[in-house]
Amino acid sequence: MTAHSPNKNKAFEASSITPRQKDYAQWYNDLVLKSGLADYSAVRGCMVIKPYGFALWENIQRQLDRMFKETGHQNAYFPLFVPKSFLEKEEGHAEGFAKECAVVTHYRLKTDPERKGKLIVDPEARLEEELVVRPTSEAVIWNTFKSWIRSYRDLPLLINQWANIVRWEMRTRLFLRTTEFLWQEGHTAHASREEAVEEARRMLQVYADFAEQWLALPVLKGVKTAAERFAGAEDTYCIEVLVQDGKAIQAGTSHFLGQNFAKAFEVTFTNRSNQQEYVWATSWGVSTRLIGTLIMAHGDDHGLILPPRLAPVQVVIIPIARSNDQLQQMAQAARQLQAELAAQDLRVMVDDDPQQKPGWKFTEYELRGVPVRLALGPRDLENGTVELARRDTMTKETVPLGGLPARIKILLDDIHRSLYARALQFREQHTTYVTTYEAFKKVIEEKGGFVVAHWDGTTETELAIKEETKATIRCIPLDQQPVPGTCIYSGKPSQQQAWFAVAY
Amino acid sequence: MTAHSPNKNKAFEASSITPRQKDYAQWYNDLVLKSGLADYSAVRGCMVIKPYGFALWENIQRQLDRMFKETGHQNAYFPLFVPKSFLEKEEGHAEGFAKECAVVTHYRLKTDPERKGKLIVDPEARLEEELVVRPTSEAVIWNTFKSWIRSYRDLPLLINQWANIVRWEMRTRLFLRTTEFLWQEGHTAHASREEAVEEARRMLQVYADFAEQWLALPVLKGVKTAAERFAGAEDTYCIEVLVQDGKAIQAGTSHFLGQNFAKAFEVTFTNRSNQQEYVWATSWGVSTRLIGTLIMAHGDDHGLILPPRLAPVQVVIIPIARSNDQLQQMAQAARQLQAELAAQDLRVMVDDDPQQKPGWKFTEYELRGVPVRLALGPRDLENGTVELARRDTMTKETVPLGGLPARIKILLDDIHRSLYARALQFREQHTTYVTTYEAFKKVIEEKGGFVVAHWDGTTETELAIKEETKATIRCIPLDQQPVPGTCIYSGKPSQQQAWFAVAY
Repeated sequence: MTAHSPNKNKAFEASSITPRQKDYAQWYNDLVLKSGLADYSAVRGCMVIKPYGFALWENIQRQLDRMFKETGHQNAYFPLFVPKSFLEKEEGHAEGFAKECAVVTHYRLKTDPERKGKLIVDPEARLEEELVVRPTSEAVIWNTFKSWIRSYRDLPLLINQWANIVRWEMRTRLFLRTTEFLWQEGHTAHASREEAVEEARRMLQVYADFAEQWLALPVLKGVKTAAERFAGAEDTYCIEVLVQDGKAIQAGTSHFLGQNFAKAFEVTFTNRSNQQEYVWATSWGVSTRLIGTLIMAHGDDHGLILPPRLAPVQVVIIPIARSNDQLQQMAQAARQLQAELAAQDLRVMVDDDPQQKPGWKFTEYELRGVPVRLALGPRDLENGTVELARRDTMTKETVPLGGLPARIKILLDDIHRSLYARALQFREQHTTYVTTYEAFKKVIEEKGGFVVAHWDGTTETELAIKEETKATIRCIPLDQQPVPGTCIYSGKPSQQQAWFAVAY
Repeated sequence: MTAHSPNKNKAFEASSITPRQKDYAQWYNDLVLKSGLADYSAVRGCMVIKPYGFALWENIQRQLDRMFKETGHQNAYFPLFVPKSFLEKEEGHAEGFAKECAVVTHYRLKTDPERKGKLIVDPEARLEEELVVRPTSEAVIWNTFKSWIRSYRDLPLLINQWANIVRWEMRTRLFLRTTEFLWQEGHTAHASREEAVEEARRMLQVYADFAEQWLALPVLKGVKTAAERFAGAEDTYCIEVLVQDGKAIQAGTSHFLGQNFAKAFEVTFTNRSNQQEYVWATSWGVSTRLIGTLIMAHGDDHGLILPPRLAPVQVVIIPIARSNDQLQQMAQAARQLQAELAAQDLRVMVDDDPQQKPGWKFTEYELRGVPVRLALGPRDLENGTVELARRDTMTKETVPLGGLPARIKILLDDIHRSLYARALQFREQHTTYVTTYEAFKKVIEEKGGFVVAHWDGTTETELAIKEETKATIRCIPLDQQPVPGTCIYSGKPSQQQAWFAVAY
């Protein structure tokens, strides 16, 4: 087995990827744009998700949707627009989202009487009440739940929505933070606090399982501090992923909303004792940000490394030939092999484009992060073999054609485990326990990663540390035993350690 | 076999359905709302698609998506917002959509300094250029295609998007015409006129096949007149469905856009002769309107009749018992039967709610349009039988439990064919050929349905007829042999017959 060296031909997209060490942010953008996942759009802060990126999102959706349905949830669809007065009803919620809302004020354009072919907003078509493009749907959904819930028999109400969301972000980054993004938002209603908390935690676990089993990513599961909580929640649970520049990404959140929205929208139910009670709520969501997360966690200087269970193309077959006649023959053999693998539910493509050389194609599919590459030449055909290369390790070997589907299935699982193990090892190597603020600052500045430290539990201290170091408390892990100690910043008593990091 | 009579208990939702003869529009609303497909929302003209309705939409999506992929299309996602200047670029397009656009003018709210807890639009957060919430995506997509297309090797480009759309409609109707709706929009780019026309017609045929095979609906396939064409198209093809009040519904459209958008957005390609040419385009779409169409076409005074291949629940099993103990025993048998049917890929539910009587449940699932109902009582269990009722004919019979999965599969196909045949027969009985304008007016007024008549080919005549009768030309059928004649309105020579109807 030998490692590939990237081809130096100038035409190769991959050769122009900025190395991570040189400029991590540019490396990330190069991967997204050059692999064909997404494009910038002409609309500020919005992106175009290209077919390759969307196929990845469809695979993510399919698995999550199955997991939501297996846990008893049903999909529904609620309006894109939130009347301004709805947003006002839950005070914390309003404050949290008011500053980043796209606001619809008019419902008609008209032709400009002074400039031919131009349109202007029709001043006579002003809305009585402005509509906000949903930054999240609690307000619209709880206003609807009011008419769906009468009695304890209507509970729990377990709803999920796949939708587009708009938050007017000032600084955007493809997939990780865009003005418009795609997500799912679960909204559930329950008869008791306990049941709602259990639901919020259950869905956090669904996200964690999805990350581990499908994204090949270990996640830190925990609860947010008050300062980092969702606007309108009593508790926000989260999964946090550490990526290769040592920063954390909040990859999913699940909120216990208490009775805040039930009170704001007056949603009550008749309990078993025939009394009126406010309903308990949760909401939870993950978004196209998951794609940014997996790129940052797994990619290398050759391009994407897609987790095999979600990769739109799991295997690419490249026929190798010296002449066009021979290429046709090899392409035919490649298509036969494709059919054999596809029959075993593998996602396979053949690239027999005569206009590009094999070396170019190798680099191209490395860039696109296809987990397994098969190169099939005349000699292979004679010998009943094929050259198999795996993207994660960039190694290759010659293997028999016989039994190839089974071999590839095992290999894909192996790649999955190996990606997960690599990410876990990285996280462990980049998790540092400190007892002094000096050490804290040094780690944040020089090494990055998670820094675990005692914290006095106050927002004041948390914000002071953020101000001075840019590091925030990502969460208090759920599975952590609270051990008392001394706050690294204030020197006051601390009940537990918090996990800090600089975050996206 | 005997027909069910609807139960008279006041608690029954179904008993309060307005009969079609009394008030067709109210009948339709009753069906949508009481069957749990959708709800009105607090946002003007927008609806909430409830879990039952959304499950139906998911089934529609799944089949269409498969058909699009089988014809070589890939999904992608483009921004929700269209800059006003993009909409202006294609003149006809701009005129067609400007009057119904939701316009985003600001990107921030702020707290009202004068009224505690209230939000106002922040006047300092005014957008330099207004954004329109997409009424369709030609403008945004063709602006993107500009950077995706360089050479004939990049063509054809076959893209589809599943998205939400906003058109500020003044008069809305659940599913059929709502301010926001869900749809898919295909957008393709081609190297020649012929190829683009072929694509537009291919996708029309995909829609027609989908309607026949999945919705159990016969459609009239044709081409629109200039007056009814999509804003920006050279030709609009459509599928039209006749529903029970004798009106037509445009259920899907496919547009040949010529080079209009390529010219507006300067999208050229290098052809095989190394010359620059403008690209040829199509777009095509169907929406949640399909749900309104199938309700109006198939439903009856008992409720929905869902086409079995798309029904979220194909079979409902209702255990019958005299006591709670017996109910538990029967429910267990019902669940066993459910598992047996589900193993054969049937979508089955059991309703063993002890709080409702079987009669109530019968009416409820008739209302919800479940194709097949099984009632399982103690005597059935003894005899190895079950009572099977079909929703479309409201007939029932006692059948052996042995071989039930195969029997139900055959029955579902039979129901599908029977619904299709019923709709086709209705259309044939409501298609009238006329040669005079007097006859035309009489048919439109008294009988409804399609009226086929010679037309002189002018927009003037078409609009005059519309003005006087409300009937519009739905299309010129594609499979119609043009036979010359005399226009019923102007008496001028006519090249072909047009199909008129009053439309939704």
